[in-house]
Amino acid sequence: NLRVKLPATCIVLEVIIIILFATLVEYDHDTDAKHWHEEMSKHNKSNYENEFYFRYPSFQDVHVMIFIGFGFLMTFLQRYGFSSVGFNFLIAAFSLQWATLMQGFFHGMSEGNGKIHIGVESMINADFCTGSVLISFGAVLGKTSPVQLLVMAVFEVALFAINEFILLSALGARDAGGSMTIHTFGAYFGLMVARVLYRPHLDKSKDKNSSVYHSDLFAMIGTIYLWMFWPSFNSAVTAHGDDQHRTAMNTYYSLAACTLATYGFSALVSPEGKLDMVHIQNAALAGGVAVGTAGEMMLTPFGSMIVGFLAGTISTLGFKYLSPVLEEKLRIQDTCGVHNLHGMPGVLGAIVGAITAAAATREIYGEGMEDVFPDVHSNNITASMQGVRQAISLAVTLGIALLGGLIVGFILKLPIYGSPPDTICFEDGIYWEVPGEE
Amino acid sequence: NLRVKLPATCIVLEVIIIILFATLVEYDHDTDAKHWHEEMSKHNKSNYENEFYFRYPSFQDVHVMIFIGFGFLMTFLQRYGFSSVGFNFLIAAFSLQWATLMQGFFHGMSEGNGKIHIGVESMINADFCTGSVLISFGAVLGKTSPVQLLVMAVFEVALFAINEFILLSALGARDAGGSMTIHTFGAYFGLMVARVLYRPHLDKSKDKNSSVYHSDLFAMIGTIYLWMFWPSFNSAVTAHGDDQHRTAMNTYYSLAACTLATYGFSALVSPEGKLDMVHIQNAALAGGVAVGTAGEMMLTPFGSMIVGFLAGTISTLGFKYLSPVLEEKLRIQDTCGVHNLHGMPGVLGAIVGAITAAAATREIYGEGMEDVFPDVHSNNITASMQGVRQAISLAVTLGIALLGGLIVGFILKLPIYGSPPDTICFEDGIYWEVPGEE
Amino acid sequence: NLRVKLPATCIVLEVIIIILFATLVEYDHDTDAKHWHEEMSKHNKSNYENEFYFRYPSFQDVHVMIFIGFGFLMTFLQRYGFSSVGFNFLIAAFSLQWATLMQGFFHGMSEGNGKIHIGVESMINADFCTGSVLISFGAVLGKTSPVQLLVMAVFEVALFAINEFILLSALGARDAGGSMTIHTFGAYFGLMVARVLYRPHLDKSKDKNSSVYHSDLFAMIGTIYLWMFWPSFNSAVTAHGDDQHRTAMNTYYSLAACTLATYGFSALVSPEGKLDMVHIQNAALAGGVAVGTAGEMMLTPFGSMIVGFLAGTISTLGFKYLSPVLEEKLRIQDTCGVHNLHGMPGVLGAIVGAITAAAATREIYGEGMEDVFPDVHSNNITASMQGVRQAISLAVTLGIALLGGLIVGFILKLPIYGSPPDTICFEDGIYWEVPGEE
Repeated sequence: NLRVKLPATCIVLEVIIIILFATLVEYDHDTDAKHWHEEMSKHNKSNYENEFYFRYPSFQDVHVMIFIGFGFLMTFLQRYGFSSVGFNFLIAAFSLQWATLMQGFFHGMSEGNGKIHIGVESMINADFCTGSVLISFGAVLGKTSPVQLLVMAVFEVALFAINEFILLSALGARDAGGSMTIHTFGAYFGLMVARVLYRPHLDKSKDKNSSVYHSDLFAMIGTIYLWMFWPSFNSAVTAHGDDQHRTAMNTYYSLAACTLATYGFSALVSPEGKLDMVHIQNAALAGGVAVGTAGEMMLTPFGSMIVGFLAGTISTLGFKYLSPVLEEKLRIQDTCGVHNLHGMPGVLGAIVGAITAAAATREIYGEGMEDVFPDVHSNNITASMQGVRQAISLAVTLGIALLGGLIVGFILKLPIYGSPPDTICFEDGIYWEVPGEE
Repeated sequence: NLRVKLPATCIVLEVIIIILFATLVEYDHDTDAKHWHEEMSKHNKSNYENEFYFRYPSFQDVHVMIFIGFGFLMTFLQRYGFSSVGFNFLIAAFSLQWATLMQGFFHGMSEGNGKIHIGVESMINADFCTGSVLISFGAVLGKTSPVQLLVMAVFEVALFAINEFILLSALGARDAGGSMTIHTFGAYFGLMVARVLYRPHLDKSKDKNSSVYHSDLFAMIGTIYLWMFWPSFNSAVTAHGDDQHRTAMNTYYSLAACTLATYGFSALVSPEGKLDMVHIQNAALAGGVAVGTAGEMMLTPFGSMIVGFLAGTISTLGFKYLSPVLEEKLRIQDTCGVHNLHGMPGVLGAIVGAITAAAATREIYGEGMEDVFPDVHSNNITASMQGVRQAISLAVTLGIALLGGLIVGFILKLPIYGSPPDTICFEDGIYWEVPGEE
Repeated sequence: NLRVKLPATCIVLEVIIIILFATLVEYDHDTDAKHWHEEMSKHNKSNYENEFYFRYPSFQDVHVMIFIGFGFLMTFLQRYGFSSVGFNFLIAAFSLQWATLMQGFFHGMSEGNGKIHIGVESMINADFCTGSVLISFGAVLGKTSPVQLLVMAVFEVALFAINEFILLSALGARDAGGSMTIHTFGAYFGLMVARVLYRPHLDKSKDKNSSVYHSDLFAMIGTIYLWMFWPSFNSAVTAHGDDQHRTAMNTYYSLAACTLATYGFSALVSPEGKLDMVHIQNAALAGGVAVGTAGEMMLTPFGSMIVGFLAGTISTLGFKYLSPVLEEKLRIQDTCGVHNLHGMPGVLGAIVGAITAAAATREIYGEGMEDVFPDVHSNNITASMQGVRQAISLAVTLGIALLGGLIVGFILKLPIYGSPPDTICFEDGIYWEVPGEE
């Protein structure tokens, strides 16, 4: 019974957030009435140069991915639709506020002005961080209470912000679409939490850990929205102009190629040659994950397709052959298969990013080098060195994710959060007033 | 049997609209081929300064809220999904045309040029007016025929346009996101209509006035889209630049805080500590309503959160404790609980707007004052006076909504519209060819 | 059993596409890092002049129409939801890649530079071509294997590109929203294929060729998205400024009027005066099809409404009276009724386009004439001649669609694609692992 725990957690967290916002957060130069008008008159700017017009449509697409995409993707379970959409909604609404503070804290630290300034770019970054929490949610779906999930989010958001700060600010890595910061981090963090929360008797809820016909259709709403808007996701915070444009296009082609690989391999690994909805719902998205780092680079359209094709292939094969092994041998009960959708494709994306960065030349990028690899442009480092930075960043991410997940997993194992018993997992009825079947 | 009434109503209304458009409506300077090109050469403008690029993405988000958001939000009823989405579709398609004329008439009157000029901004305003009609639809959902709804829309759109004109043009109030013009007006108008149409024997349809598992999931599609795109709704017609940017961001944080309040109080008011889908589907949106007036002002992010938190709280408590009282004591059968989602949060939003306006200083707004409070900027009035204007506007809105609803309610009570009997309310079968259950 | 055929088809097609992309496709000037930065410095351009910001929001709306709109519109069948969304997803992901090559080949031919240059405009055009394939898919829905559909797409995309090239480049016709190139072509091609693939014993699957309650609600998701975003569809590739703006607005009003006509006539043709979901789901969209050519022209808002009203009327009447005749007399089994939604309204749109073009004067268009009718503007031809071009284009489109559909139909009749038997049409189970009913 969560009658005290859930309200207490929600209200206390929100009050803390409001107090921190009141003391730390200010409008940035593009959202503040006075400052923007000063900026316009000083720098002879026009309203259409406000950051809003460069990024708000992308932001809204990302927002749809977070709330509809992730939310409905997880409704595939037959009796966990309310919780899938509903807890996704709750922890996302919390995480985006908390992420604004955590990311702003580290970002402000590097700027050294003591205040957190926010606008559409910080909103996108907050949604990104939220995405990482939702990936981890996918690994523990059906086996955790909403209080547990909020506590997980509190820690994960902080660790995400630390990892992101190390990668982007300290190491100078590039990761606009978050192959490392979002997908690799969220997946391996969540898998480690799932490992610690391993339930040996989960088979008591086995009958509910599957889909029904219409729940699979609801899940396809999530899948298709994630697929369509992934170009916006990867390009949302890249530099203005050719960078946003190119990133969106690379992602578009990567996803298209990934989809053909997914359908092909899904039929191939089935003895009857039948397609499996689990593959289509998930593996077809791996192409977006896998160009999360290299998407803004001059990856070329056919390069993007190769990456997408590989991602769809390893993701589908992972669902078929690797997931059962992870569960039986490593005792990782990965409800949504986030290792196949975000874990392996995220690592692939990091590697592709490192290689593409190392291959960058001024011949290819021209003056556009400054936007993509500022340190290479200014001759601080060589392109190879940028590749090394990217590779180190992957290792750091894996380390922080696994270690963080281990510690947070043990925190979440405390028997104080109203976690469901093994017999009532994957079941809305424990947390929701549920109406009858139709 | 609506075989004659519904076609006659649809076709006659559409023919009247076409004739009025033919005589009164013209492309505005941004949509007319000749005028836009003249404008570009005269004022040395570029195509990217066309209003389209400032507002069309927001328009489309608003459009999704109107047709998917409102439409699917109301599909929560077990056997009224066709009517919820379908009648929403019909009356919205009618209202947006009719609103173009009514709003254009009053807007043109203040411009005094005899013609109605239309473009993306009038499209957004037409969708806004439509939203108000759909709010009223929520109060009478399941108990009205499509002919009745169209007749309601005819009158409500006209009254909306009058009220909007009084508030924005005559009184000089600010209400970009429509806490007053859209939400307060639509809710209290609809509630008064529902009062007049009170059905003492509605309990004969009681078994159908509830949800089933999948109908609640369909409704969540509506909820989530409304929630995600509310930042676009509130910012769609605010001034270019920092205003649109700030309004969107204030709304984003208000909604996030509102969601945590809703989850917290939903569990708290349940004896078993279980979440109620009705609260999540509705109260989580109150934060968007409540910053509809103040969202464009320098409300600050934490101010937005406080407003959102309050809105979620009163909305959830309203569903639990006030709605039963309204039905039993005041005889208002409010199917969707619009009083909790739009009524009280709308009034709250109007009050917050009045206070925030009264607190405006040049120190805070700088030259941006002109966009938000033009009359204060030009020293015509003080900020306090602007606050008074806002407060008067709330009173005017409540008056017009309640009186209008009363009159229109009696018009709708005439037994000529094919209204359903008490025994077949909340039932698609009376107006639709319905296929079997699966 | 497709265990070999489907993977082989997917993988071989994707490998061919990747090789062709590697040899033929390059970033265009707006997506290439070096070239865009050169362009900015040479022509004193700013990042906000990158084509991305003019077209990407429209592109994403079109993308939603292709994957959610078409995909879910076809889920109305009770046991074909996986295939409707899933095959739509597969053939769209393939077609958009293949279309990039085919359209680029013809487009490049007219430019004569040997390479295909891609960016957001080519992405929109690729999605458009994909839309045409999905229209044809609607005609053969439930009766074709995914291998068959991919083979159909291979040929249809090529024929689409040829027809488009003849119309837009050789004949100099205007067809921004594709009344001819997309809708007329896709519909009559698909109908001819359906004719060749006629199944005399299809009534053996009759019980599955219908909807259930929730499948109709899923279909409404598709309908509403198509309806809402059609203004973006028609305006996505029109000229910057007033053209995009006007096209979107014309489409908005055409659709609104169409919706009222659809509801009116749907009730009128029912003996009991009941609305039919088939009409609402489809005919209400005909207004978007019918202004696909004239939408960018100075059609006027009331002109758009008249066109939309006519389109909704003929489409609804077509479903009621013409479709049964087509099936019985002409042996065309048109599963989704694409003749009523895309065929007749497409032809209507072509005729309206021809008339509106012929009526163009410099008095009305001013300098905006250059964007809409460049050849009339430069005095190469008269407006009447432009009208003749449009009319010839309709005839050419019908010819290529019907002849192409005939030939491709016979190719698809070969018994090598794993086509379903007459007894198991409209059934997911033959191609998908299907979970239990709930």
